Amino acid sequence: MDLSILVPVGGIIALLFAAFLYFSVKKQSPGNQKMMELSNAIREGAMAFLKSEYKVLIIFVIVVSVLLFIASFFVQNIEWPTSIAFIVGALFSAVTGNIGMRVATMANARTAEGSKNSLSKGLSVAFSSGAVMGMSVVGLGVIGIICLFILFNNFFGFSIVTSTNILFGFGFGASSIALFARVGGGIYTKSADVGADLVGKVEAGIPEDDPRNPAVIADQVGDNVGDVAGMGADLFESYVDSIIATMAIAALVSLLISAENVGLLEEIFPWYDTLNLPNLEMINNYVLLPLYISVIGIISSIIGVLVVIYGKGKNVYSALRNSLFVAMILTAVLGGIITWYIINRLEPFYAMLAGLIAGIIIGLSTEYYTSEKRKPAQSIAEASKTGPATVIIQGLQVGMISTIIPIIAVVVAMMIAYLLSGFYGVALSAVGMLSILGVSLATDCYGPVADNAQGISEMAGMGKEVRERTEQLDAVGNTTAAMGKGFAIGSAAITALALIFTFILTAEGLGYKINLSLSDPYLVSGLFIGAMLPFIFVALATGAVGKAAYAMVEEVRYQFDKFDLLKNDKNKPDYERCVKISTNRALKEMILPTLIAVITPIIVGIVLKPTGLGGLLMGSISTGFLLAIFLANSGGAWDNAKKYIESGNLGGKGSSAHKAAVIGDTVGDPCKDTSGPSLNILIKLMSIVSLVFLPIIIAIIDIIY
Amino acid sequence: MDLSILVPVGGIIALLFAAFLYFSVKKQSPGNQKMMELSNAIREGAMAFLKSEYKVLIIFVIVVSVLLFIASFFVQNIEWPTSIAFIVGALFSAVTGNIGMRVATMANARTAEGSKNSLSKGLSVAFSSGAVMGMSVVGLGVIGIICLFILFNNFFGFSIVTSTNILFGFGFGASSIALFARVGGGIYTKSADVGADLVGKVEAGIPEDDPRNPAVIADQVGDNVGDVAGMGADLFESYVDSIIATMAIAALVSLLISAENVGLLEEIFPWYDTLNLPNLEMINNYVLLPLYISVIGIISSIIGVLVVIYGKGKNVYSALRNSLFVAMILTAVLGGIITWYIINRLEPFYAMLAGLIAGIIIGLSTEYYTSEKRKPAQSIAEASKTGPATVIIQGLQVGMISTIIPIIAVVVAMMIAYLLSGFYGVALSAVGMLSILGVSLATDCYGPVADNAQGISEMAGMGKEVRERTEQLDAVGNTTAAMGKGFAIGSAAITALALIFTFILTAEGLGYKINLSLSDPYLVSGLFIGAMLPFIFVALATGAVGKAAYAMVEEVRYQFDKFDLLKNDKNKPDYERCVKISTNRALKEMILPTLIAVITPIIVGIVLKPTGLGGLLMGSISTGFLLAIFLANSGGAWDNAKKYIESGNLGGKGSSAHKAAVIGDTVGDPCKDTSGPSLNILIKLMSIVSLVFLPIIIAIIDIIY
Repeated sequence: MDLSILVPVGGIIALLFAAFLYFSVKKQSPGNQKMMELSNAIREGAMAFLKSEYKVLIIFVIVVSVLLFIASFFVQNIEWPTSIAFIVGALFSAVTGNIGMRVATMANARTAEGSKNSLSKGLSVAFSSGAVMGMSVVGLGVIGIICLFILFNNFFGFSIVTSTNILFGFGFGASSIALFARVGGGIYTKSADVGADLVGKVEAGIPEDDPRNPAVIADQVGDNVGDVAGMGADLFESYVDSIIATMAIAALVSLLISAENVGLLEEIFPWYDTLNLPNLEMINNYVLLPLYISVIGIISSIIGVLVVIYGKGKNVYSALRNSLFVAMILTAVLGGIITWYIINRLEPFYAMLAGLIAGIIIGLSTEYYTSEKRKPAQSIAEASKTGPATVIIQGLQVGMISTIIPIIAVVVAMMIAYLLSGFYGVALSAVGMLSILGVSLATDCYGPVADNAQGISEMAGMGKEVRERTEQLDAVGNTTAAMGKGFAIGSAAITALALIFTFILTAEGLGYKINLSLSDPYLVSGLFIGAMLPFIFVALATGAVGKAAYAMVEEVRYQFDKFDLLKNDKNKPDYERCVKISTNRALKEMILPTLIAVITPIIVGIVLKPTGLGGLLMGSISTGFLLAIFLANSGGAWDNAKKYIESGNLGGKGSSAHKAAVIGDTVGDPCKDTSGPSLNILIKLMSIVSLVFLPIIIAIIDIIY
Repeated sequence: MDLSILVPVGGIIALLFAAFLYFSVKKQSPGNQKMMELSNAIREGAMAFLKSEYKVLIIFVIVVSVLLFIASFFVQNIEWPTSIAFIVGALFSAVTGNIGMRVATMANARTAEGSKNSLSKGLSVAFSSGAVMGMSVVGLGVIGIICLFILFNNFFGFSIVTSTNILFGFGFGASSIALFARVGGGIYTKSADVGADLVGKVEAGIPEDDPRNPAVIADQVGDNVGDVAGMGADLFESYVDSIIATMAIAALVSLLISAENVGLLEEIFPWYDTLNLPNLEMINNYVLLPLYISVIGIISSIIGVLVVIYGKGKNVYSALRNSLFVAMILTAVLGGIITWYIINRLEPFYAMLAGLIAGIIIGLSTEYYTSEKRKPAQSIAEASKTGPATVIIQGLQVGMISTIIPIIAVVVAMMIAYLLSGFYGVALSAVGMLSILGVSLATDCYGPVADNAQGISEMAGMGKEVRERTEQLDAVGNTTAAMGKGFAIGSAAITALALIFTFILTAEGLGYKINLSLSDPYLVSGLFIGAMLPFIFVALATGAVGKAAYAMVEEVRYQFDKFDLLKNDKNKPDYERCVKISTNRALKEMILPTLIAVITPIIVGIVLKPTGLGGLLMGSISTGFLLAIFLANSGGAWDNAKKYIESGNLGGKGSSAHKAAVIGDTVGDPCKDTSGPSLNILIKLMSIVSLVFLPIIIAIIDIIY
């Protein structure tokens, strides 16, 4: 029985469920006039950012796709549909971001209003809106991949190897959007936040989220831009990349058989000799298995989401956690069944399971190292007794130590996957980690909605009870956002790893002789440069936040003065101008990091040969992964150390310990919201650029040398 | 003509010159009673530290040498003399450290006294004492290597391959001392410094170097322990390791010829077919070439040192810089001549030159990124206007960006060396970088002496004019110390690289089949773990400083209270107890990092096979190098940003900008004086442990699997 119809059906189910959730959120009361105003302002700001982003993006997408299209006529192993796949990938990613932003900015006021009713009502609204994003990502992800694959393979008649190679264009398109959304969004969110705080809280002494602050809407918009659109695009990319990498590795087998490359076959499927190859139907099953598993993940995620929405639990955190565990267990059980059914063996399933579990472990480790209830963040709070310097030192230490568990988790998952199931297994472990993205992304995107709801309840003066509830929702949102960041980093690392292995295998499969020995100085040079790039990228991203924040500070000061906002209650600030400044600055400041990420692999590939390029990718993934965890966890721990003190410990708000902790938090903010997450994009983007451009690099080398 | 006698003669000349300088420093007036007292207290403290360190070290050395000795009877490719070489290496390194400490602690009061006379007199004394250390290191380095080599090769009749392999024991011995001196010393110096400042400056409000502060002597001792003994042992290790690695690679050729391994031969000497191999005399010349070049470096360094001592320049900084340039140019010219004379070709000379120039570039880049006269440190000072958080963020950024030049310098030097002169050239480039160590170490070790002289002139109340002169000496010392740190890191990286290549080549030469392909998940796992280790090492070292400093804070508080030091002038603090606390804590806290550095390569080698071990080494060198530069330069830039403000800019001392900059400096202190330099040791030690223990690892694997 051909089950392949299940894949698009699963995608459509995800989208239908997303639509159902969307309308169920929409029918909630948006609250009073004031709340609607605020919510509208945030939505308009968010949409303004997207619009500006799209303007730049369209140029980027057109230029790249035209280049790819032209190249396809001159360069072997680049086909014209790659440019089509690229455009579709960019489009799909942009659509998911747009949907996510729309529903998130619609849900914030409704969450606040729902919290009037009860805590679980507020939770249900906020979480549903997050799930819309989650379901759109996984739905459009599998639909995009399967439709393009069928189009190229069945309709245009390209071989499965070529078809999966073309699909990397889809991943590349998704990468491009992720770059803009994550890096640009990261710069946006922090410049607005820091700008609003520096003038509002520090200089003028007005509380956070005070509507007199002209940057307050930009700040709220930033939460959505960075944590909804950015996170969504980042994970959309990981999701589709991991699936495509697995498909490409499986497809490669058909090529290796005709080339009688037994060594490589064995590395991909250790049991290749039992497959009676060439057995095209069987190879096809292996190619499609990651999609089946993704569909299982979708179904499991839907059930996980329903657990939260219809659950009556009072504890917000455990409701969210339970949804993840339900989805995980279902995926594990059903994933085993479908794997057995499709390919009659379970090794790849174990590989997928290893990835799934590693993802959970990384999330939990992030929670441990950043939660205010745990020792690491509390040790930072303790250090605040001796001033800001010790807060910083302790935070750096916590961040560095926190790299152990994620690194070991990824290494162990990779080794289990490889030993049981070859390179196919390694790629599949990434698919496994991301399989329940439908629900895990929902818990991530829930965070900024709850944060916004809290802001609105503050600005609209909704009273103590509602504020307390939204505060509770927000607090859990902070934890899940931190876990989500850890998960996003881990999945980016394992996806990038899968891409690099695919890069190496593809290059070998296509017959390029690439020496990848560690004793080759070309490779070592690439490795060193690759290891350096994340440091440079972080420095540039942080510098960008500084510059953009400075522009915001000047604007807020100017408006305070011009409209006499602090004394004259009748004047209203010009929120829009602040939104515009953040938008323009973020997009301008991301140009340099973008160019580095896109151009370096190509230049290094040409100068240091593909050998050096292999080193570059491996170097950048190893330090990129480490720095991302280090920065995200340091930042998260500083944030929560401050919150720990604010909740009444060590002298509480206003104490000298608190002042020291605030400094730590300020340092940590760009680390956890801009630099850290941006690294996910860097490592994946460089890998996918290498995969897509390898034939061009080889062609250029042939001409030059 | 057999020139090999030149090598020991060169070493002896270095030692004689060191003795000459020693006595010329000794005959200077040590100043008045008070100054002698202070100087004696510092010397006694320093010697007390060394004594305690030796007690632990002796156990370590005995255990390891016995293990190596026993292993030599059971494991192929480990010879019994390795344990002898190990002991000699440890002994020689300890002796250089001891000499350096003695002369440095003798020269401090004499420098202050000499400054009474004139600035250039003070400079001459301080620099001479540094040169004693520099000359001892290079003299004992070449003497140790050539004597052991002749002993094993000519006397015991081991082949040149075996003899050079045994020499790695010498390097391992040097490594062990460096570990204790650099890591233990780094913890010592910062815990004493932070402890003294926190209670003295911050709590009690007394000035730095106030004799009422019980930790003041420990603080001065710390400068010597960290920057003299630590730096000396670190560079002694790099110096001998780079020479031994080059010798081992050349020796390997004799083995490859009999095995007819043309591929590898070509990688070592691209011109191997012109050598009429097997031509044992010619191979021997290649083996000894690094020693000849080192002797050239010694002669050039002596002339460079004389330029400073007998120069009459008024500008301290340019005098030091000129000495380096003189030595460099002489080494370049004479190095070319001797290379041509010995092996009749110049390619290896170019490789050596590439290393020499890369070392200078790295030093200058460090100067640029940390000097208060340059933009980066000033940008941090600027950021202090908006408080400590922006100081920290800007400093992190400066440190990250500052990795570009050193990485590119090492990559370019390596590629030039490799393309012109194969792996032999890569190793020789490390020898080139370190060739003028005699004089460059003198400029490094000059720093702490000038610092101490400044402290003594303060404590002994020597008047304004002398204080201004010693301040000037001290200021330049800070710059040269920063450059020295950069140079030490760069040379550690290139030495470790040479060791790793030697590791790979030796393993291949000895016939172990080690797969080192980047597409091997074993290797990638090792790479990830290796990349992580520096982060863990830094976190542990920083944590150790925190704990040790806390113990010091408690002691100082206790003594202030017990002796009523702040009010009662007649009571004297118990300096010795503070020295003891720093000593004991430093040695205790370094146990865990030590174990990690020594045991990880062995465990990873066994679990992930030598393939994973190769990845581990390459991963740790890439992040270790980056993190070391990042931490050292951030720390140096924070330090000088503070000094920039203190010299009257942006509001000067006591302004809010200054307060913010002080916080940056406090964060940076353990970064630049403990964690950063410790990484040099980590990357070299792991490489040398791998080289020495590889046969044992292979034997264990054979038993297990």
